[in-house]
Amino acid sequence: MCRWLAYSGTPVLLDTILYKPTHSLIDQSRFAKLGVETTNGDGFGIGWYTKEAETPALLRDIGPAWNNRNLQELANHVRSPLFFAHIRASTGTAVQQSNCHPFRYGRWMFMHNGAIAAFHLVRRDLLLLVDPALFAGIEGTTDSEVMFYLALTFGLEQDPPAAVARMAGVVERVGRKHGVEFPLQMTLAITEGEHVWAFRYSSERASRSLFYSSRADDVRRLHPDVAFLRDISPETRLIVSEPLDDLPGVWNEVPEDSCKIVGPGVAELRPFAPEPADWWTGDPVNP
Amino acid sequence: MCRWLAYSGTPVLLDTILYKPTHSLIDQSRFAKLGVETTNGDGFGIGWYTKEAETPALLRDIGPAWNNRNLQELANHVRSPLFFAHIRASTGTAVQQSNCHPFRYGRWMFMHNGAIAAFHLVRRDLLLLVDPALFAGIEGTTDSEVMFYLALTFGLEQDPPAAVARMAGVVERVGRKHGVEFPLQMTLAITEGEHVWAFRYSSERASRSLFYSSRADDVRRLHPDVAFLRDISPETRLIVSEPLDDLPGVWNEVPEDSCKIVGPGVAELRPFAPEPADWWTGDPVNP
Amino acid sequence: MCRWLAYSGTPVLLDTILYKPTHSLIDQSRFAKLGVETTNGDGFGIGWYTKEAETPALLRDIGPAWNNRNLQELANHVRSPLFFAHIRASTGTAVQQSNCHPFRYGRWMFMHNGAIAAFHLVRRDLLLLVDPALFAGIEGTTDSEVMFYLALTFGLEQDPPAAVARMAGVVERVGRKHGVEFPLQMTLAITEGEHVWAFRYSSERASRSLFYSSRADDVRRLHPDVAFLRDISPETRLIVSEPLDDLPGVWNEVPEDSCKIVGPGVAELRPFAPEPADWWTGDPVNP
Amino acid sequence: MCRWLAYSGTPVLLDTILYKPTHSLIDQSRFAKLGVETTNGDGFGIGWYTKEAETPALLRDIGPAWNNRNLQELANHVRSPLFFAHIRASTGTAVQQSNCHPFRYGRWMFMHNGAIAAFHLVRRDLLLLVDPALFAGIEGTTDSEVMFYLALTFGLEQDPPAAVARMAGVVERVGRKHGVEFPLQMTLAITEGEHVWAFRYSSERASRSLFYSSRADDVRRLHPDVAFLRDISPETRLIVSEPLDDLPGVWNEVPEDSCKIVGPGVAELRPFAPEPADWWTGDPVNP
Repeated sequence: MCRWLAYSGTPVLLDTILYKPTHSLIDQSRFAKLGVETTNGDGFGIGWYTKEAETPALLRDIGPAWNNRNLQELANHVRSPLFFAHIRASTGTAVQQSNCHPFRYGRWMFMHNGAIAAFHLVRRDLLLLVDPALFAGIEGTTDSEVMFYLALTFGLEQDPPAAVARMAGVVERVGRKHGVEFPLQMTLAITEGEHVWAFRYSSERASRSLFYSSRADDVRRLHPDVAFLRDISPETRLIVSEPLDDLPGVWNEVPEDSCKIVGPGVAELRPFAPEPADWWTGDPVNP
Repeated sequence: MCRWLAYSGTPVLLDTILYKPTHSLIDQSRFAKLGVETTNGDGFGIGWYTKEAETPALLRDIGPAWNNRNLQELANHVRSPLFFAHIRASTGTAVQQSNCHPFRYGRWMFMHNGAIAAFHLVRRDLLLLVDPALFAGIEGTTDSEVMFYLALTFGLEQDPPAAVARMAGVVERVGRKHGVEFPLQMTLAITEGEHVWAFRYSSERASRSLFYSSRADDVRRLHPDVAFLRDISPETRLIVSEPLDDLPGVWNEVPEDSCKIVGPGVAELRPFAPEPADWWTGDPVNP
Repeated sequence: MCRWLAYSGTPVLLDTILYKPTHSLIDQSRFAKLGVETTNGDGFGIGWYTKEAETPALLRDIGPAWNNRNLQELANHVRSPLFFAHIRASTGTAVQQSNCHPFRYGRWMFMHNGAIAAFHLVRRDLLLLVDPALFAGIEGTTDSEVMFYLALTFGLEQDPPAAVARMAGVVERVGRKHGVEFPLQMTLAITEGEHVWAFRYSSERASRSLFYSSRADDVRRLHPDVAFLRDISPETRLIVSEPLDDLPGVWNEVPEDSCKIVGPGVAELRPFAPEPADWWTGDPVNP
Repeated sequence: MCRWLAYSGTPVLLDTILYKPTHSLIDQSRFAKLGVETTNGDGFGIGWYTKEAETPALLRDIGPAWNNRNLQELANHVRSPLFFAHIRASTGTAVQQSNCHPFRYGRWMFMHNGAIAAFHLVRRDLLLLVDPALFAGIEGTTDSEVMFYLALTFGLEQDPPAAVARMAGVVERVGRKHGVEFPLQMTLAITEGEHVWAFRYSSERASRSLFYSSRADDVRRLHPDVAFLRDISPETRLIVSEPLDDLPGVWNEVPEDSCKIVGPGVAELRPFAPEPADWWTGDPVNP
């Protein structure tokens, strides 16, 4: 599948987070430990916020992250208070820039690890449920981007957890109508540039791994010798598919069926469940 | 927009047709004379039939054709009796392999120069008209591929001119419902590996250029010194966006509103007109 | 050949310079007016200085600039007081990232439009003249990068005009020993992050075009309505292969055989001539 | 490092060898078992002979083999009696097409797994030893291509084993002059379109894995149910970095310090040793 990382807090040089840790995301691109695939070499993407524009910047490319020089260049020169990074292992859809995460809509970014099962069977029905006014924004062919546009359709900009619950409910409903037992597998990260919402859920209750870092001041007390920790705010957080190192006391598993929210003044762990979409009958007359 | 070339006849080394002519398709990738754009550098593709498989082979890439070494390698080593070649100038959709022509479905290939006007407005409605059983085969995001899948939906494999007429009618109907005055601009090449159907049509009756070569024996009499002409069958034909050279007596314009068909024992020029799609009301209840 | 642009002055969003002008460098990638080639689609590069690192950042890729989304993303989000941009039209060497300009050595950047004539004949002799301690830094196969490493060998970091004069002298000497009448054609931009040195020279005294902008306060008086001009320092300068627009009074030709230097407190135009390299005999015993 | 495969014998669809086996080269691109790296995703190449040209055709690209559609297309449509395939794991040099194996010179192809140790230290000295008349043909920056050009310099076209012995001797001599203990690590495949010469050698006598297949008629007797084996000539051979499957009796290790030669009427295993290059003194006056 894929691996990803979300950073929020004190502005940091991307390199510090992307390349420096022992088991960095770049390391995971070849040697993932907890993923379905050890190799995540089917494209990558980073998205970061700057002072220069409302919308985040994206760098996405179709080769592996581990040998991409432009990624290393940006990591060495860009500092940001909030960024997403994603390495892709395609589950079948084409390796192309428009299929690389994160996806963007205005100020919003979205990235995903997992899959909609039997996507070729349900893709058309799901696309039909995307708000026609949003439809033209879909540029790629992944299940992930359709999930993003469904969440936007269902109110992501107003209430992210509710919109994701509706999206997940629809994906499960449509999948089951097509005979799929476990339609959805997802860990998600979503941001509007200030907060990060991370979700861990799967229809079979066997979700991909997901971790968040402890409060930075607690971690600092445990590891006073780690230079990076000295300069960051207590609220600085990482949410990651796999721990970036094996420092004790740093990484906490996001439980199944839950949503972790971090941001200024916020560090919340909520239960998450899809909102059943019984209203969808699969009848093209009443979609 | 784009430029393309279709070859049918005596098996020939691709290089002879793709690179050797004065104003070859490779030359057109930088210096097109009759196109809307002089530069066609947003990807390319070739598709060719061999004895090894029922389906044609494709080589497609996202860089310009003029500097692509793999294309030159294949051109120097592949001989084929029927091949398509296409150089792309994007009208806005992403530069990615899945958006490069020719497109393929089983034994069929399809390539296009032109555009569906205001495609972002009509894309969803057109996608809905694609046979759901075919829908999962759509891999890219171009108007051209949607045209191909609509034609497949409307019986391309049974009757290409009729299916293309229905497709064109639907594109015009949907476009006009969305307020587009001239919804369709197209020159098309379609093949099943034996015949080539080429279409020239636009809603505004100002279609992109399209030419077909005269019978090879007639051309040979005119130009007895051209080595290539000595070894090819009388039925060998080229259909091209732009003449590949300025040899007199070789190139004939495909008239507006017409369909040229070539193949074993066939060299036909027919009128072409879209089949009006008044049945489409834009009402999602009765699509 | 190529086209390039060097900016120095008030920190500016790259987009303002790279994309916004009527005849921007991106426009020149398809429609160059003064170059040998109208199409410059064989790769591109930008290099820019930030506060985050001593060395400049590079983004280089092998496709055309005009359709590159990562370039547009960076242009929309990166502000810099000094940056280089280059679009390439290969004169035969491979289209690969390591052949894209600008080249970098420590804090230094170098970009080139032109060619060493008959480079395949002289490449080995020129490579032999590169300081062995620097040799391992050569990553690509262009004449341009060899020119950079020769200039470094001859003291670029101490005295750029003198080092470039020695480099040019050597290139001419070696070329002529190999029977090349006009060995060198160059417009060059070089920077250490503070000053920009631009050179215009060719052995045949028919050099590629090169222009520099007038003092920003003078331009502002002429064009009080141009928003961009209101916010930049008097010393802000552009040096470009082609004027970016047709505003009167803005663009001045760099004369043949000269070197333009800009930077804080510096705006100088000097004569330039290669330093004859009669010491090079072509004898491998005394290279 | 890398993994490679050489096929010689009855013309076969490339797919049969490249994709179909359980542990095919494509599988090895992500899950190599015997290599230094499990992931070989830094580019790939295939080279094959056809009836259309004297020189072999090359398809090389910089992404991973496992997701490359053009490679799969060619594998499905190209039949050849002799082909090379290579997947790359860069040992530091740039990921670019000109660094992808196989390399070609006229009718000759060359591919390599291994490395010249401390190549940055010895590169210049080794390049100086390449015949100046051949020098311009070097297009990339790998140690492997320099080894090829050294072998060409030392008579590869006349006597491959002798030329490779001279090349290896020079690499060891130059390396040791620079203080490198174990200068060379190599498994090599070389062909002129009829025979394949494969070498296994390393300065430390701990060479990368290399295997050759038994005579096809012997294998057929062992595995009468394997369809592919029924249709191939007794002399059909594979030489591979790793066995493509675990069929007993098929794969034989090429011993350390040896050269395996296969071709029409030839199946020979010879000892191999570098030819000491004491004549090289490192003195630029007498190179």
